Amino acid sequence: MDKNTFAPTPPRGWNSYDYYDTAVTEADVRKNAEFMAKHLKSAGYEYVVVDIQWYATDAGTRRDEYQYIPFGGRVMDEYGRFWPDPARFPSSTEGRGFGPLAEYIHSLGLKFGIHIMRGLPRDAAHRHLPVYGTDITCDEIADPLSVCDWDPDMYGLRDRPESQAYYDSVVSLYAAWGVDFLKVDDICNTHAFADRPYMGRHEVEMIARAIDKAGRPMVLSLSPGPALLDKAWHYCRYANMWRITDDFWDSWPALKHMFDFCERWQYVGGPGCWPDCDMLPLGTVGRGFGQERLTNFTRDEQAAMMALWCLFRSPLMLGAELTKLDPETLALITNPALLALQSPTAVPRQVSRDEKSAVWQSTDGDALTLALFNLSDTPLPLSPTPFLPPCDPPATPLQDLLTGEPCTNAAPIPAHGVRVYRVR
Amino acid sequence: MDKNTFAPTPPRGWNSYDYYDTAVTEADVRKNAEFMAKHLKSAGYEYVVVDIQWYATDAGTRRDEYQYIPFGGRVMDEYGRFWPDPARFPSSTEGRGFGPLAEYIHSLGLKFGIHIMRGLPRDAAHRHLPVYGTDITCDEIADPLSVCDWDPDMYGLRDRPESQAYYDSVVSLYAAWGVDFLKVDDICNTHAFADRPYMGRHEVEMIARAIDKAGRPMVLSLSPGPALLDKAWHYCRYANMWRITDDFWDSWPALKHMFDFCERWQYVGGPGCWPDCDMLPLGTVGRGFGQERLTNFTRDEQAAMMALWCLFRSPLMLGAELTKLDPETLALITNPALLALQSPTAVPRQVSRDEKSAVWQSTDGDALTLALFNLSDTPLPLSPTPFLPPCDPPATPLQDLLTGEPCTNAAPIPAHGVRVYRVR
Amino acid sequence: MDKNTFAPTPPRGWNSYDYYDTAVTEADVRKNAEFMAKHLKSAGYEYVVVDIQWYATDAGTRRDEYQYIPFGGRVMDEYGRFWPDPARFPSSTEGRGFGPLAEYIHSLGLKFGIHIMRGLPRDAAHRHLPVYGTDITCDEIADPLSVCDWDPDMYGLRDRPESQAYYDSVVSLYAAWGVDFLKVDDICNTHAFADRPYMGRHEVEMIARAIDKAGRPMVLSLSPGPALLDKAWHYCRYANMWRITDDFWDSWPALKHMFDFCERWQYVGGPGCWPDCDMLPLGTVGRGFGQERLTNFTRDEQAAMMALWCLFRSPLMLGAELTKLDPETLALITNPALLALQSPTAVPRQVSRDEKSAVWQSTDGDALTLALFNLSDTPLPLSPTPFLPPCDPPATPLQDLLTGEPCTNAAPIPAHGVRVYRVR
Amino acid sequence: MDKNTFAPTPPRGWNSYDYYDTAVTEADVRKNAEFMAKHLKSAGYEYVVVDIQWYATDAGTRRDEYQYIPFGGRVMDEYGRFWPDPARFPSSTEGRGFGPLAEYIHSLGLKFGIHIMRGLPRDAAHRHLPVYGTDITCDEIADPLSVCDWDPDMYGLRDRPESQAYYDSVVSLYAAWGVDFLKVDDICNTHAFADRPYMGRHEVEMIARAIDKAGRPMVLSLSPGPALLDKAWHYCRYANMWRITDDFWDSWPALKHMFDFCERWQYVGGPGCWPDCDMLPLGTVGRGFGQERLTNFTRDEQAAMMALWCLFRSPLMLGAELTKLDPETLALITNPALLALQSPTAVPRQVSRDEKSAVWQSTDGDALTLALFNLSDTPLPLSPTPFLPPCDPPATPLQDLLTGEPCTNAAPIPAHGVRVYRVR
Repeated sequence: MDKNTFAPTPPRGWNSYDYYDTAVTEADVRKNAEFMAKHLKSAGYEYVVVDIQWYATDAGTRRDEYQYIPFGGRVMDEYGRFWPDPARFPSSTEGRGFGPLAEYIHSLGLKFGIHIMRGLPRDAAHRHLPVYGTDITCDEIADPLSVCDWDPDMYGLRDRPESQAYYDSVVSLYAAWGVDFLKVDDICNTHAFADRPYMGRHEVEMIARAIDKAGRPMVLSLSPGPALLDKAWHYCRYANMWRITDDFWDSWPALKHMFDFCERWQYVGGPGCWPDCDMLPLGTVGRGFGQERLTNFTRDEQAAMMALWCLFRSPLMLGAELTKLDPETLALITNPALLALQSPTAVPRQVSRDEKSAVWQSTDGDALTLALFNLSDTPLPLSPTPFLPPCDPPATPLQDLLTGEPCTNAAPIPAHGVRVYRVR
Repeated sequence: MDKNTFAPTPPRGWNSYDYYDTAVTEADVRKNAEFMAKHLKSAGYEYVVVDIQWYATDAGTRRDEYQYIPFGGRVMDEYGRFWPDPARFPSSTEGRGFGPLAEYIHSLGLKFGIHIMRGLPRDAAHRHLPVYGTDITCDEIADPLSVCDWDPDMYGLRDRPESQAYYDSVVSLYAAWGVDFLKVDDICNTHAFADRPYMGRHEVEMIARAIDKAGRPMVLSLSPGPALLDKAWHYCRYANMWRITDDFWDSWPALKHMFDFCERWQYVGGPGCWPDCDMLPLGTVGRGFGQERLTNFTRDEQAAMMALWCLFRSPLMLGAELTKLDPETLALITNPALLALQSPTAVPRQVSRDEKSAVWQSTDGDALTLALFNLSDTPLPLSPTPFLPPCDPPATPLQDLLTGEPCTNAAPIPAHGVRVYRVR
Repeated sequence: MDKNTFAPTPPRGWNSYDYYDTAVTEADVRKNAEFMAKHLKSAGYEYVVVDIQWYATDAGTRRDEYQYIPFGGRVMDEYGRFWPDPARFPSSTEGRGFGPLAEYIHSLGLKFGIHIMRGLPRDAAHRHLPVYGTDITCDEIADPLSVCDWDPDMYGLRDRPESQAYYDSVVSLYAAWGVDFLKVDDICNTHAFADRPYMGRHEVEMIARAIDKAGRPMVLSLSPGPALLDKAWHYCRYANMWRITDDFWDSWPALKHMFDFCERWQYVGGPGCWPDCDMLPLGTVGRGFGQERLTNFTRDEQAAMMALWCLFRSPLMLGAELTKLDPETLALITNPALLALQSPTAVPRQVSRDEKSAVWQSTDGDALTLALFNLSDTPLPLSPTPFLPPCDPPATPLQDLLTGEPCTNAAPIPAHGVRVYRVR
Repeated sequence: MDKNTFAPTPPRGWNSYDYYDTAVTEADVRKNAEFMAKHLKSAGYEYVVVDIQWYATDAGTRRDEYQYIPFGGRVMDEYGRFWPDPARFPSSTEGRGFGPLAEYIHSLGLKFGIHIMRGLPRDAAHRHLPVYGTDITCDEIADPLSVCDWDPDMYGLRDRPESQAYYDSVVSLYAAWGVDFLKVDDICNTHAFADRPYMGRHEVEMIARAIDKAGRPMVLSLSPGPALLDKAWHYCRYANMWRITDDFWDSWPALKHMFDFCERWQYVGGPGCWPDCDMLPLGTVGRGFGQERLTNFTRDEQAAMMALWCLFRSPLMLGAELTKLDPETLALITNPALLALQSPTAVPRQVSRDEKSAVWQSTDGDALTLALFNLSDTPLPLSPTPFLPPCDPPATPLQDLLTGEPCTNAAPIPAHGVRVYRVR
């Protein structure tokens, strides 16, 4: 299999984390999938992803103390592989795992994804559990010093041929369930090791190989960021998308900071290889974190975010509870002109950047689009003229892609807002 | 002017540094230019570049103590602009500067380049010299804290509008002389400032603007490296080439290390924008440094270097005394199959890398070339087969681009050597 | 000479900087000296120190732009040695330098100090001035890359035997003037060189040797901080005091931060060797900086500062305009019980430290003093009991050294305040 | 209890590590103790310390792969406390632990010490074992992210009041066994956390408190180094000795490097508080590491090491198999003149240091000793004269403390050797 064919364009979909945190249930997943099939599929959204701790029986029960309860209840088979918590995922019992849920999502014309952590469960190593289909035990391949600095559940695997067997055992299980998208965490940037921030590099290769051996095209998504720019070639070689930022949330400083990341990563990206700006925290989010809320982003900030993600060609994974989306947000995330910027042949480039503004262009064959971002806290007049190609004036008046209105340089761009022009 | 049109392909030429150090003379430059016109021009080599300290009257006189004599003799006009040392560049007297030399080089069908340092001469600031065409004096724009950590001659310019006038004054002078290529030093990586390694960023913009204002297409080359990967977009926006390494010399560890730099920079590069692996220290080098010598590179290492520079699309600036080149070296640097890899539409990518080997491919439309590098110290059998595209076997036997012989997997690649195949 | 005999106890005095910045005049110095002789000498204050830029003819004239005007007017003799600006120091003319001023201060029973920068004037190097009494010129010993990152006037000296001659020439001149105290700047921590923060180490040794050769006991004070804890032995060996902090000003966060520095440096210090917490910004300060003001410290903070400086045995250099001191401040800085803590045989130790409080003790023979500092922003009850020696209850009720009142544990210590007890 | 009374002078003794690694047995300990009682006790050696992994049933069984076998056999009681491996420590069975061994060692007039790791056994947390005498379970206080980067057995304890109970439970058990010396590892410098190298600080305080509560004077020794100089006050406050270096072995570069550490730590140290240069790898060492060998140190290096440890007042813990000690080594480690330098009132100071030599002095009341170390690789003449106090010539000819011979300046000091003079 050529993994670059798994994601010819930046993947689009929904992820349970921003709304449900660790505590999403099967019913929650189903209703979001149904919404997607009805309202978003036509705009290219297709992945439904269950995020972290679907295997934890105590997920969310001590949220004031812990996001991930140490030494807590985890559903694990006799080979040290996690299975869905049956209380939250009732269809998973009797050895069916995520099979029935995946099947339902497929029946809606969508694809199914899950989150996993790098490594194997610590308990599996302490209990010397066997690795499926081998005579190895988990303690022989687990590295007790390879830990994550925010999740207490796992040990990373040693860089030994035997470790491949464990990853084969879990990936083939997930393939059998019908998983189409694998978000692997604590691997893109291993924060705990300041001097070895890509210390799970061999595990990336093993997981990629396990997918290839499993024979099912599963998109491989690496988390968390910030990804290491000087390892770009390795992410490109083995993964389909990788997070260029740490967890992104709905705060303006975080959105402004994304321009730094996009600036750096603009040269990388293409069919099968997508630098990832993280989920879009839109609409209603935060319930699992203790406080359901509307996104903190203003409408202008939402437009700027959507324009940047599209122009930069980031994957678009919605972080909202889909069933609560308002029409204006729906319109934004399905805006055809913006989504069209995610063409596999587009070339996004930053043209200018200072404290107050950022200017990006996207060329795609003869087409040229220009986006002017106001990064300042007050309205700012920004003319596209200085950023148009020399000796190449647009034949017709520029149009704002978002509003359809003709370009009037006099109108300032609102604070934190964007104006996107189709130049030619 | 669109600066990207100045260097549609990676520039090729000769630079005086590797052989002459700081002490090159007009006669030296002329004879190398003549050799180039006769033997190398047809292979695309066209730039003849006079490197550092052409303005120093004491260049090379205390070489055991200093490469750049502090507080030494420098030829400077009343506006704080350096002029050629008349003892070494006799045609420069009577206000002609590099004009006559440039004219001669143009008469050979070649182009002329010079090296300058970022900033203005310290003496010009201490003496409060006026800036040409303005009522500013040099002390008002010189930053006494902005120094280079290896050259004692200059102060960087402050980030003020007035500083543009100084750069305009020197660049317009050089344009009048007929300069086609400007290598600006202490600017791509300002080593002296560990936490501000691109602290001359505003000076890059000023020099680019000065070139634009001067109206003469001058290639802008930034030195020294290693350039900062996360500033790639800025180099691309303002310069034509920039050094991705510190000074490169003829040692195998340095060549092996270049694979690290190329790995990181492979996504950047295209018409007008070329990451630069530095001069090629081939043939005879080192006289100005105290010891004339043949390059330390073996023939296999030379082939590997040339293959990497070509495939990666680095500029090719020869560091040799051209008149002493032997036929085998000449053949290597004019090898048409290798040079063809520097096509503006080629896409170079690293495919694999470990301690012992590196594999690169270059795709250019339908064409596919594969280079297998042996990074180990003993002969190594390396088969191209695992790196060929899946489901896409070459129709005909692979041929070695360097030797023209058919691919025989059995033959090991020599230590530090390369094998380059045209796959399709 | 044994330099440790120059400062058997922590030096006390006045420094012009906090009030006058760069622009102090002879008249200013005289009136402060007169005040000291009358009101402070009996409490051990004896040094009158003229701080930076007494040689600058333009000091303070462009204060909105620069503290130290680059390439500005400096009074320098034909040997590259600074002399006082005659406009500000009228008695210095006719080759007398600071002689008359020193003589006057000595006549008051006080001692005279000046500030100098590490190195020699840049102009002296660019002009190739001779070094007094030698056939060396300044350009031969100046290191053009050894610059200060906040003062543009000097080049550091190379680590060569010839450099000693320059330091000998200036120190013997100052000795002839009658200087008793030399504050040398840009030397204790050479901030400009992140990886070589003590790169003027050889210059410290040269200056110490020059003092020894000059034969006049001059206290050697090194600035700025933070001094490097792992170079403590070197400061002790060559200097009399050295700054353990960067410039200290009258802000509570800076005072709170001083507990970090004192914590680290508590083991170092004794006759001739004093870690220095910097000037005391009390009373009226700031005129030269553009805004004359009363210290920002509350009375409680002033007491805490004075208690810490005394207990830790820091030098006490007053930063105020002395003639404007109010009686309460005067009483604090001359409090005999606090000043007695600066005994050469005292042993200061931190006993406890957390976010809200710090507890120090000072033992001196049988005497034991305890200081409780409230580092929090609200009143805090702090009992001395847990910090008294085990099995060693004080015979009599503890007394507050500052107020003379008996210890009543119930009374909380005010925010940012201190309570000092004589235990035995 | 006042912990400073536990170690009024630097502790001396023997540690099993350098010879036995993890695999020492009760018989080994007994025979070394017997040797100490007979030959070393009179020179002040009294501690017999069993180093790491006395609780491991598999210690040393896979030494080519692991020093500490991950997920291996550990003897642990129902409260998560380690007990001696009964196979290696036969007297420990039937709930007696180290009691019988301690009793035997006490019967020889010696003291007994053991090594422990910071934290509690990982298995105790994964199995939710109760903490002795409480209703807490180990998982509630273990921090799954607080791991050691070289030993896989433990989790550090959270900074919570409940954690004290666990440390109380183990320390009171060891006190009941008769332990006199506790070497706690992974605590002085927590290497795994580059930005929090003293992250077990609260655990130091808890262990000190547990010792105080247990009521038995146990010397508290912290490992590994390098200790953090800016935390000196905290080590002094809670511990009796702490390692200022990482593990020290018998190589000259390591010994030369110790001068860096001693230079930095010379101001700290006194009754109850001893910076520790680590064990002395003398005589025969290394058996447990796979190769029994004589120390790599030359006799001159051994003398230099012993002189530095004594003058600096480091604890003296022998790393040799004592029963194999030769007479010359025995004479060195019991040299009364050197040992006398470890007086509680001595003041050791470095006087000079360069690439080739180090000079130290020790003053103790009126006594003055001078040590000249040759750090170079060839014999070096070094005269004590420049380092004698000014104006204070010794009345009688200096004598070499090691040989008893009079000082003859002409005789060079051998490479890596030392000469120690009693000046007065």
